[in-house]
Amino acid sequence: MFASKLESTVRDIPGGRAAIIMGFDGIPLESYPGEDGLDIETMGMELSVVLKEVRKASELLAVGDTEEVTVRTDQVTAILRIVNHDYFMILALSPQGNLGKARYALRILAPQLSIELA
Amino acid sequence: MFASKLESTVRDIPGGRAAIIMGFDGIPLESYPGEDGLDIETMGMELSVVLKEVRKASELLAVGDTEEVTVRTDQVTAILRIVNHDYFMILALSPQGNLGKARYALRILAPQLSIELA
Repeated sequence: MFASKLESTVRDIPGGRAAIIMGFDGIPLESYPGEDGLDIETMGMELSVVLKEVRKASELLAVGDTEEVTVRTDQVTAILRIVNHDYFMILALSPQGNLGKARYALRILAPQLSIELA
Repeated sequence: MFASKLESTVRDIPGGRAAIIMGFDGIPLESYPGEDGLDIETMGMELSVVLKEVRKASELLAVGDTEEVTVRTDQVTAILRIVNHDYFMILALSPQGNLGKARYALRILAPQLSIELA
Protein backbone atom coordinates (compact mmCIF):
# COMPACT_ATOMS: atom_id res chain seq x y z
CA MET A 1 0.00 0.00 0.00
CA PHE A 2 2.60 2.53 1.18
CA ALA A 3 5.65 0.36 0.62
CA SER A 4 6.49 1.80 -2.79
CA LYS A 5 6.32 5.37 -1.45
CA LEU A 6 8.68 4.46 1.38
CA GLU A 7 11.05 2.71 -1.02
CA SER A 8 11.15 5.59 -3.50
CA THR A 9 11.72 8.09 -0.66
CA VAL A 10 14.66 6.07 0.68
CA ARG A 11 16.12 5.65 -2.82
CA ASP A 12 15.66 9.32 -3.78
CA ILE A 13 17.49 10.75 -0.75
CA PRO A 14 21.29 10.61 -0.84
CA GLY A 15 22.29 8.46 2.13
CA GLY A 16 18.76 7.04 2.61
CA ARG A 17 18.84 3.72 4.50
CA ALA A 18 15.33 2.66 5.58
CA ALA A 19 11.85 4.00 6.35
CA ILE A 20 8.80 3.00 8.36
CA ILE A 21 5.25 4.11 9.13
CA MET A 22 4.36 3.17 12.68
CA GLY A 23 1.52 3.60 15.15
CA PHE A 24 2.20 5.48 18.38
CA ASP A 25 1.48 2.14 20.03
CA GLY A 26 4.75 0.83 18.51
CA ILE A 27 3.06 -1.39 15.91
CA PRO A 28 4.44 -1.00 12.37
CA LEU A 29 2.02 -0.29 9.52
CA GLU A 30 4.48 -0.51 6.64
CA SER A 31 8.25 -0.46 6.29
CA TYR A 32 11.02 -0.43 3.74
CA PRO A 33 13.94 -2.03 5.57
CA GLY A 34 16.61 -1.03 3.07
CA GLU A 35 19.59 -3.17 2.29
CA ASP A 36 22.20 -2.55 4.96
CA GLY A 37 20.73 -4.49 7.86
CA LEU A 38 19.47 -1.55 9.93
CA ASP A 39 16.64 -2.86 12.13
CA ILE A 40 14.09 -0.15 11.33
CA GLU A 41 11.26 -1.90 13.20
CA THR A 42 13.14 -2.02 16.50
CA MET A 43 14.30 1.55 15.88
CA GLY A 44 10.67 2.56 15.35
CA MET A 45 9.53 0.88 18.56
CA GLU A 46 12.30 2.52 20.59
CA LEU A 47 11.73 5.94 19.06
CA SER A 48 7.96 5.72 19.61
CA VAL A 49 8.79 5.95 23.33
CA VAL A 50 10.96 9.01 22.66
CA LEU A 51 8.20 10.63 20.63
CA LYS A 52 5.67 10.08 23.40
CA GLU A 53 8.01 11.87 25.83
CA VAL A 54 8.45 14.74 23.35
CA ARG A 55 4.68 15.13 22.97
CA LYS A 56 4.23 15.12 26.75
CA ALA A 57 6.95 17.79 27.08
CA SER A 58 5.47 19.95 24.29
CA GLU A 59 2.08 19.82 25.96
CA LEU A 60 3.45 20.73 29.37
CA LEU A 61 5.52 23.59 27.89
CA ALA A 62 2.59 24.78 25.75
CA VAL A 63 4.80 25.18 22.67
CA GLY A 64 2.28 23.81 20.16
CA ASP A 65 2.01 20.49 18.36
CA THR A 66 5.10 18.36 17.80
CA GLU A 67 5.91 18.14 14.08
CA GLU A 68 9.34 16.57 13.76
CA VAL A 69 12.13 15.07 15.84
CA THR A 70 15.63 14.39 14.50
CA VAL A 71 18.08 12.13 16.31
CA ARG A 72 21.73 12.02 15.27
CA THR A 73 24.22 9.47 16.52
CA ASP A 74 27.66 8.91 15.04
CA GLN A 75 26.28 6.04 12.92
CA VAL A 76 22.76 7.08 11.90
CA THR A 77 20.42 10.04 11.54
CA ALA A 78 16.73 9.31 12.13
CA ILE A 79 14.06 11.84 11.15
CA LEU A 80 10.67 11.28 12.78
CA ARG A 81 7.69 13.08 11.32
CA ILE A 82 4.19 13.03 12.80
CA VAL A 83 1.61 11.83 10.23
CA ASN A 84 -1.57 12.19 12.30
CA HIS A 85 -2.87 11.50 15.80
CA ASP A 86 -2.21 7.76 15.43
CA TYR A 87 0.83 7.40 13.18
CA PHE A 88 4.34 8.72 12.66
CA MET A 89 7.02 7.91 10.12
CA ILE A 90 10.79 7.56 10.30
CA LEU A 91 13.39 7.98 7.59
CA ALA A 92 16.85 6.71 8.55
CA LEU A 93 19.91 8.17 6.82
CA SER A 94 23.64 7.58 6.99
CA PRO A 95 25.38 10.39 8.97
CA GLN A 96 26.60 11.89 5.67
CA GLY A 97 23.11 11.73 4.12
CA ASN A 98 21.25 14.78 2.84
CA LEU A 99 19.28 15.85 5.92
CA GLY A 100 17.75 18.89 4.24
CA LYS A 101 16.36 16.88 1.35
CA ALA A 102 15.12 14.17 3.73
CA ARG A 103 13.25 16.66 5.93
CA TYR A 104 11.70 18.26 2.87
CA ALA A 105 10.57 14.86 1.51
CA LEU A 106 8.88 13.96 4.80
CA ARG A 107 7.20 17.36 5.05
CA ILE A 108 5.59 16.65 1.67
CA LEU A 109 4.88 12.95 2.25
CA ALA A 110 3.34 13.11 5.75
CA PRO A 111 0.19 15.07 4.76
CA GLN A 112 -0.32 12.72 1.78
CA LEU A 113 -0.17 9.69 4.08
CA SER A 114 -2.45 11.45 6.55
CA ILE A 115 -5.14 11.76 3.85
CA GLU A 116 -4.76 8.13 2.77
CA LEU A 117 -4.89 6.90 6.36
CA ALA A 118 -7.99 8.92 7.25
CA MET B 1 31.17 31.81 33.36
CA PHE B 2 29.41 30.51 30.24
CA ALA B 3 26.62 33.06 30.20
CA SER B 4 28.28 35.39 27.69
CA LYS B 5 28.89 32.49 25.28
CA LEU B 6 25.25 31.46 25.49
CA GLU B 7 24.09 35.04 25.00
CA SER B 8 26.32 35.66 21.97
CA THR B 9 25.21 32.34 20.43
CA VAL B 10 21.53 33.25 20.83
CA ARG B 11 22.11 36.76 19.47
CA ASP B 12 24.23 35.58 16.51
CA ILE B 13 21.70 33.06 15.19
CA PRO B 14 18.75 34.48 13.23
CA GLY B 15 15.65 33.49 15.22
CA GLY B 16 17.65 32.61 18.37
CA ARG B 17 15.45 32.76 21.50
CA ALA B 18 17.24 31.21 24.51
CA ALA B 19 19.97 28.76 25.49
CA ILE B 20 20.95 26.60 28.45
CA ILE B 21 23.67 24.24 29.65
CA MET B 22 22.14 21.55 31.83
CA GLY B 23 23.17 18.37 33.65
CA PHE B 24 21.55 15.09 32.65
CA ASP B 25 20.10 15.16 36.16
CA GLY B 26 17.95 18.14 35.05
CA ILE B 27 19.87 20.76 37.05
CA PRO B 28 20.84 23.87 35.03
CA LEU B 29 24.47 24.98 35.02
CA GLU B 30 24.00 28.24 33.12
CA SER B 31 21.31 29.77 30.97
CA TYR B 32 20.52 32.74 28.78
CA PRO B 33 16.74 33.02 29.00
CA GLY B 34 16.34 35.47 26.12
CA GLU B 35 13.72 38.16 26.06
CA ASP B 36 10.48 36.59 24.86
CA GLY B 37 9.44 34.71 27.99
CA LEU B 38 10.30 31.18 26.84
CA ASP B 39 10.86 29.10 29.98
CA ILE B 40 14.19 27.55 28.95
CA GLU B 41 14.81 25.94 32.36
CA THR B 42 11.55 23.98 32.32
CA MET B 43 12.17 23.11 28.68
CA GLY B 44 15.62 21.82 29.66
CA MET B 45 14.22 19.67 32.46
CA GLU B 46 11.54 18.19 30.22
CA LEU B 47 13.96 17.54 27.37
CA SER B 48 16.51 15.94 29.69
CA VAL B 49 13.96 13.11 30.07
CA VAL B 50 13.68 12.87 26.26
CA LEU B 51 17.45 12.79 25.90
CA LYS B 52 17.75 9.98 28.42
CA GLU B 53 15.23 7.95 26.37
CA VAL B 54 17.19 8.68 23.17
CA ARG B 55 20.44 7.52 24.77
CA LYS B 56 18.79 4.33 26.02
CA ALA B 57 17.41 3.67 22.51
CA SER B 58 20.77 4.36 20.82
CA GLU B 59 22.46 1.94 23.18
CA LEU B 60 19.89 -0.78 22.62
CA LEU B 61 20.04 -0.30 18.84
CA ALA B 62 23.87 -0.15 18.88
CA VAL B 63 23.93 2.89 16.56
CA GLY B 64 26.76 4.72 18.35
CA ASP B 65 26.81 7.70 20.68
CA THR B 66 23.98 10.24 20.58
CA GLU B 67 25.26 13.60 19.34
CA GLU B 68 22.25 15.78 18.69
CA VAL B 69 18.46 15.80 18.96
CA THR B 70 16.23 18.39 17.31
CA VAL B 71 12.60 18.87 18.30
CA ARG B 72 10.28 21.00 16.17
CA THR B 73 6.84 22.08 17.21
CA ASP B 74 4.77 24.72 15.43
CA GLN B 75 6.00 27.36 17.91
CA VAL B 76 9.62 26.49 18.67
CA THR B 77 12.62 24.53 17.44
CA ALA B 78 14.93 23.15 20.15
CA ILE B 79 18.37 21.79 19.28
CA LEU B 80 19.93 19.62 21.98
CA ARG B 81 23.64 18.90 21.73
CA ILE B 82 25.54 16.55 24.03
CA VAL B 83 28.50 18.33 25.69
CA ASN B 84 29.99 15.41 27.66
CA HIS B 85 28.89 12.51 29.84
CA ASP B 86 27.32 14.86 32.39
CA TYR B 87 26.04 17.88 30.43
CA PHE B 88 24.04 18.84 27.37
CA MET B 89 23.03 22.17 25.93
CA ILE B 90 19.90 23.49 24.24
CA LEU B 91 19.48 26.33 21.80
CA ALA B 92 15.86 27.35 21.23
CA LEU B 93 14.89 29.07 17.97
CA SER B 94 11.72 30.46 16.49
CA PRO B 95 10.26 28.11 13.82
CA GLN B 96 11.59 30.44 11.11
CA GLY B 97 15.06 30.58 12.69
CA ASN B 98 18.23 29.49 10.90
CA LEU B 99 18.48 25.81 11.90
CA GLY B 100 21.60 25.13 9.82
CA LYS B 101 23.54 27.99 11.41
CA ALA B 102 22.31 26.98 14.88
CA ARG B 103 23.43 23.37 14.47
CA TYR B 104 26.81 24.52 13.20
CA ALA B 105 27.25 26.89 16.16
CA LEU B 106 26.50 24.11 18.66
CA ARG B 107 28.82 21.68 16.90
CA ILE B 108 31.63 24.21 17.44
CA LEU B 109 30.62 25.31 20.94
CA ALA B 110 29.99 21.90 22.56
CA PRO B 111 33.64 20.66 22.40
CA GLN B 112 34.83 24.05 23.77
CA LEU B 113 32.45 23.73 26.72
CA SER B 114 33.49 20.11 27.20
CA ILE B 115 37.13 21.22 27.67
CA GLU B 116 36.17 23.99 30.09
CA LEU B 117 33.92 21.66 32.08
CA ALA B 118 36.55 18.91 32.39
